Amino acid sequence: MKTVAEAFALVLEHAPLLGTERVDLSRALDRVLREEALADLDLPPFDCSAMDGYALKSDDPNEWLKIVGEIQAGSREEIEIQPGQCARIFTGAKIPTGADGVLMQEDAEASEGRLRNSASGAAAHIRRRGENCRRGDIVVPKGRQLRALDMAALASCGITQPLVSRRPQVVHFATGNELVDPKEFPEGSQIRDCNSILIASLLAEQGADLAHQSRLPDELEAGVKSIFAKHDFDLLLISGGASVGDYDYARPFLENAGFNVVFHGINLRPGKPLLFATRGRQLAFGLPGNPVSHAVIFRLFLAPLLAALAGTDPSHKFLQGVVDSSEFRGSNPREAFWPCLALWENGAYRLRPVKIQSSGDILGAAGANALLRIPPARPLKPNDLADFLWLKSRD
Amino acid sequence: MKTVAEAFALVLEHAPLLGTERVDLSRALDRVLREEALADLDLPPFDCSAMDGYALKSDDPNEWLKIVGEIQAGSREEIEIQPGQCARIFTGAKIPTGADGVLMQEDAEASEGRLRNSASGAAAHIRRRGENCRRGDIVVPKGRQLRALDMAALASCGITQPLVSRRPQVVHFATGNELVDPKEFPEGSQIRDCNSILIASLLAEQGADLAHQSRLPDELEAGVKSIFAKHDFDLLLISGGASVGDYDYARPFLENAGFNVVFHGINLRPGKPLLFATRGRQLAFGLPGNPVSHAVIFRLFLAPLLAALAGTDPSHKFLQGVVDSSEFRGSNPREAFWPCLALWENGAYRLRPVKIQSSGDILGAAGANALLRIPPARPLKPNDLADFLWLKSRD
Repeated sequence: MKTVAEAFALVLEHAPLLGTERVDLSRALDRVLREEALADLDLPPFDCSAMDGYALKSDDPNEWLKIVGEIQAGSREEIEIQPGQCARIFTGAKIPTGADGVLMQEDAEASEGRLRNSASGAAAHIRRRGENCRRGDIVVPKGRQLRALDMAALASCGITQPLVSRRPQVVHFATGNELVDPKEFPEGSQIRDCNSILIASLLAEQGADLAHQSRLPDELEAGVKSIFAKHDFDLLLISGGASVGDYDYARPFLENAGFNVVFHGINLRPGKPLLFATRGRQLAFGLPGNPVSHAVIFRLFLAPLLAALAGTDPSHKFLQGVVDSSEFRGSNPREAFWPCLALWENGAYRLRPVKIQSSGDILGAAGANALLRIPPARPLKPNDLADFLWLKSRD
Repeated sequence: MKTVAEAFALVLEHAPLLGTERVDLSRALDRVLREEALADLDLPPFDCSAMDGYALKSDDPNEWLKIVGEIQAGSREEIEIQPGQCARIFTGAKIPTGADGVLMQEDAEASEGRLRNSASGAAAHIRRRGENCRRGDIVVPKGRQLRALDMAALASCGITQPLVSRRPQVVHFATGNELVDPKEFPEGSQIRDCNSILIASLLAEQGADLAHQSRLPDELEAGVKSIFAKHDFDLLLISGGASVGDYDYARPFLENAGFNVVFHGINLRPGKPLLFATRGRQLAFGLPGNPVSHAVIFRLFLAPLLAALAGTDPSHKFLQGVVDSSEFRGSNPREAFWPCLALWENGAYRLRPVKIQSSGDILGAAGANALLRIPPARPLKPNDLADFLWLKSRD
């Protein structure tokens, strides 16, 4: 059986880069930039004042300077400063011709249209044309997932239609004759389907489009062809039916639909029956039906895969924390990833268990913010240093 | 002048809790839950199998058991297990009457409709009714910002219309005669407005609604009355015009509109001219025009305020890292928060500078993921331990 690392490498090997599209900047937050964003001008575009104050010649020998005008930010008025002159100037305003310094308002003594000259350090209050970037400089690199500050950088450089990865299209089926809609009260041997809203929420957090989602009986074939015909998906997720039990339909269903199985079963707890298959550029996963397995597999495989599809870094960014409990089960031959609570206390992450009874216990898992890695066949003891990943992918 | 801590306490003191609304679960991700979510049933709702295998009596003395039926998850068939009998069972299926153990498929020896009895450890493969929660238990606490796993927990308990905080309504004006739309190429002393997309993106990351956004000349009054009449906002943000220069209109504008100034100017770099005012339950901020100041003030004041309005924890969650540069400016009488890059390396966060020329340099800031706290009048030296905050609020 493949290790998590081997399976992860195989998934990434089969991940095709998504196509691109130009979108309005107002819709580009969290999208991955697919071309270098270049400045179309110097920034600042002109020497400007960093302060409210007075623009003057820093080598002017006169003791008093005549205030010959005032310059607001955005002002179109052209003033030229001669020896013996200065101009009132405001933050962000263009330094007038002839001036090479700004005297801060706080240091200024002005009366009756005149300013006492004191140019000490004045040059420091000028932001120079091009000090932030030169025309043609790369302002946001290719492959960056655009955050708020990147958006402002793009706006500054006039990039209002950035080229970004299109959003991945995902189809999700929750299978199982026992599932009912969460709105219903389960009777007899039924249970409520919580995997559909879980997958929908995890995909939303990653910026993927859920093109179709439905609950299907274990016999998957019924009606699926029309869904496949309607949605040109990138990724197909099937909850449940991934095991090798007599009623696990995911594998035969995928094979009938023309998918090739890349692996089926990995050395992971929870999540051992994971199935990965491909059909051309389309990828499919059969997910073990337990909701905790869903969360673990999403974090270990699907969130990084979505990053890879979009063209940004998919690697697992492990952090380390101090085990703060004797409750973490270990000594299992499979590598385990277990929901936990990672809290920063006194300069280190402390790793605490959440009360999970089993991989079916979504209630116990709900308080977790991280996944603790428990190495195969080695129980974790209190004060051990252990690897963890944030559940919601972060730096 | 107030310290950051004093100003922060004042802002929170004036933050009213937002009203609530019931929303469909599919729209509740990232919203703050405003009532305790209670289980409407035991979970699991019945004793069920944790494995694919055979359900049997664990004290059955017979060496061979007759396989009398099979039980899939969701099966409605009623089987009763007698001594000498067992039933094929699949993961999640209800344990039949009379059985009290499950023999794992991997350990089973079955042939010709019979199973070799070996009940060792079988009881461990049953998930007991109510082991995850009892009817009436709190499954998600009040005040939780709903993440993917919480959504699944709510679905499991039939909470498909959770009571959550309504989304805060925000109005934003970017002021300054020098500003042009990012689509335009700035002429003369113009610059592109990058604060509008910055504020829009920061608000989107926090789940706030931007009810209205526009660029206004410095003379704010024009046309604003109709905007105020149209939008019943919770929060008003004015970019620029917050200083005390002759052309800084934010304060007189707010005072004319009936706002009371709570503080104007704080001991913070960048962001000193910050203005905070209230009018009944409405809050307003005058933000210094520099984009880096915007980012700093949003993280220190506005993101926590939005959390407080929604009814969840607004506190600053400082982490500590090792200063990995001699470039961090300090020895300033004001407490400083400076964009930096926090990277986890060898078991600790390393804090590195980004190349920012000034608080007007949004391009330099764009690579940052954190804000470094530089204490007043104490420069940070390499290998010092320093506080930082994530720029995008996280645990």
